[in-house]
Amino acid sequence: MVSKEKSDLIIKKLREIYGDEVLKDLEKGNELSLDIVIRTLSNVIFDEKEQLITLGNKTQKRNFFSMDQARKFMQTLIVADACQNLVKSGKTTSIRSLYYNTKHTIGDSKENTFEDQIESDPIIEDIEVSINALREELHLRANSKGVMVGNLTIEDSGDEIDLRKMGSGGWAIPSIVEADIIKFKNCDAKFILFIEKDTVWGRFNEDKFWKKHNCMIIHGGGQPPRGVRRLLRRMHDELKLPVYVLVDNDPWGFYIYSVVKQGSINLAYESVRMAVPEAKFIGLSSFDQDKYNLPKEVTIKLNEGDKKRIKEILNYKWFHKQSWRDELNHMVKKGVKLELEALSAKDISFITETYLPEKIAKKEWLE
Amino acid sequence: MVSKEKSDLIIKKLREIYGDEVLKDLEKGNELSLDIVIRTLSNVIFDEKEQLITLGNKTQKRNFFSMDQARKFMQTLIVADACQNLVKSGKTTSIRSLYYNTKHTIGDSKENTFEDQIESDPIIEDIEVSINALREELHLRANSKGVMVGNLTIEDSGDEIDLRKMGSGGWAIPSIVEADIIKFKNCDAKFILFIEKDTVWGRFNEDKFWKKHNCMIIHGGGQPPRGVRRLLRRMHDELKLPVYVLVDNDPWGFYIYSVVKQGSINLAYESVRMAVPEAKFIGLSSFDQDKYNLPKEVTIKLNEGDKKRIKEILNYKWFHKQSWRDELNHMVKKGVKLELEALSAKDISFITETYLPEKIAKKEWLE
Repeated sequence: MVSKEKSDLIIKKLREIYGDEVLKDLEKGNELSLDIVIRTLSNVIFDEKEQLITLGNKTQKRNFFSMDQARKFMQTLIVADACQNLVKSGKTTSIRSLYYNTKHTIGDSKENTFEDQIESDPIIEDIEVSINALREELHLRANSKGVMVGNLTIEDSGDEIDLRKMGSGGWAIPSIVEADIIKFKNCDAKFILFIEKDTVWGRFNEDKFWKKHNCMIIHGGGQPPRGVRRLLRRMHDELKLPVYVLVDNDPWGFYIYSVVKQGSINLAYESVRMAVPEAKFIGLSSFDQDKYNLPKEVTIKLNEGDKKRIKEILNYKWFHKQSWRDELNHMVKKGVKLELEALSAKDISFITETYLPEKIAKKEWLE
Repeated sequence: MVSKEKSDLIIKKLREIYGDEVLKDLEKGNELSLDIVIRTLSNVIFDEKEQLITLGNKTQKRNFFSMDQARKFMQTLIVADACQNLVKSGKTTSIRSLYYNTKHTIGDSKENTFEDQIESDPIIEDIEVSINALREELHLRANSKGVMVGNLTIEDSGDEIDLRKMGSGGWAIPSIVEADIIKFKNCDAKFILFIEKDTVWGRFNEDKFWKKHNCMIIHGGGQPPRGVRRLLRRMHDELKLPVYVLVDNDPWGFYIYSVVKQGSINLAYESVRMAVPEAKFIGLSSFDQDKYNLPKEVTIKLNEGDKKRIKEILNYKWFHKQSWRDELNHMVKKGVKLELEALSAKDISFITETYLPEKIAKKEWLE
């Protein structure tokens, strides 16, 4: 499915770093080592210019002749080799399947290459950073969730799919959405509405919001998986579509917005290809309850976990803008949160017929 | 979306039970009451003939003039009324949205109609049983997950969708798949393969298993949601397709099979329209590790939770057959479980190219 040109490039990079350089060290009698970019918090930075969470340049050596690093060194070469074979075969697989595929007992020893997927996953992340590729380009799949419909035709693995004719179900967004696999064809949509919850997305689809407002509607089943985030980024870049994010009015919803917009600390190295720094937050705002005159009884009291999370989020650099401080402080002041479904207290279609159209018309969003 | 004829029937039933009969009692000066079918374990039976978990006939009265039942009586009428309005409007909504839609403070009191969704969900179940309809027929949606592709064309809400041309993503199965919304058109498939995990389903789709073996492939993202189970049942009944279930070799996987086949205790009243008693278990069997010569290191030791669950499952009437006892006892004897992905130790396509084709050819399944 992936183009030969791209596969060749990935294989070339893998061979250079995990093959040729190691061989060169061997031949020269040097100590065998790999340079691994550090992915812990100490090397995570917020790039003010790009408005992205990203990795710094700190690296560490992984030596073969070191008691505590030899195992990881070996694992790195095994995973790099497995990825090479995967890319060569043209197949994709899950990171769990890769773990089993590379797990074996070494020779006559009682030592296994991996004891748990907890060992193989970070190695995959090391390799992604080293060769500057997403794991999807190494043909590795994550779980998929998320669905899209709207005014766009795509090609997925050679099949043309008109996302205007996907009924009530929609097109399930796969884990790997790179340009070789997913191609954008005929696009009429003017923007993308990303919705936190699948049941709320169902309301937007049933009311044909995407048709009336000429857009795409996407959900990611809660915190969106990598495939959904990468797709948002590609559509934003390539189709020039603005992205609006609609989430619950609670710290979790705000965090989902933040991940879509700036990336996450855990996977800081991917932000550059998965985050959409221009993504706009369109609701629910902490001021919406009063503004839309929603009854008190549909609000939910903040619990201790919420309050703690709000404090944490207030410390994030990317929430330092006054407008965001106002949002979060107002939430604390009122002491309540509000789910998207709470708008149903007005009418089940209030969210699609009144709330969202008004927000868009009045350009009431945060960035 | 739903046909007028069907909507009218649902509304008629709702009005009869929650309108006319209550009114009649009122006019006659009788005590206001509703008969509610008991849904606790005391009224759950295993129907040997139908091979289904189902509800018995025990009912209880819900009286309006009873301190401890008045609240539930009121809630029942409110939810029945909301469902009536929903069906009339032709719209569908989530059970969470219905909760918010019906939640309000009563008059000048401080009493809310509902304090939590935990109160409204059981009322929905009461109504389903009373009018002998699925909540989907009351236009209520659950979360949706699950994806399908294969040799079948469907119509979803008026859109024709060729499930042979859904790329790597697939058609996302909606929550409501009743015959008014999802229609089966041109079907070439000869069977349905239900797969526990989405990443494993990805392997089957990428290898075009459904094309080579002329079938449908479906996953439900773990324990399948209602929409997926109902769709399996409809395809089995209406398209006469046998259903094969492929799950992990662990108590959880066996339980998923059991729910697909016989229904669950919690939702016993739905089995009759959601379970597929003829569903066949095609793997992974506890005997597969030896049979396919899988390395010891890809097995996972059973933990205490697994062992406890196996004992529970052995007590289920529907696992009393000798073949099932052999499966479960062998799992205990070996002391290990096995995930679908473990077959990748052979080759990432071993499962699609060797394992499944052999199982089908040799008719190696359990019922």
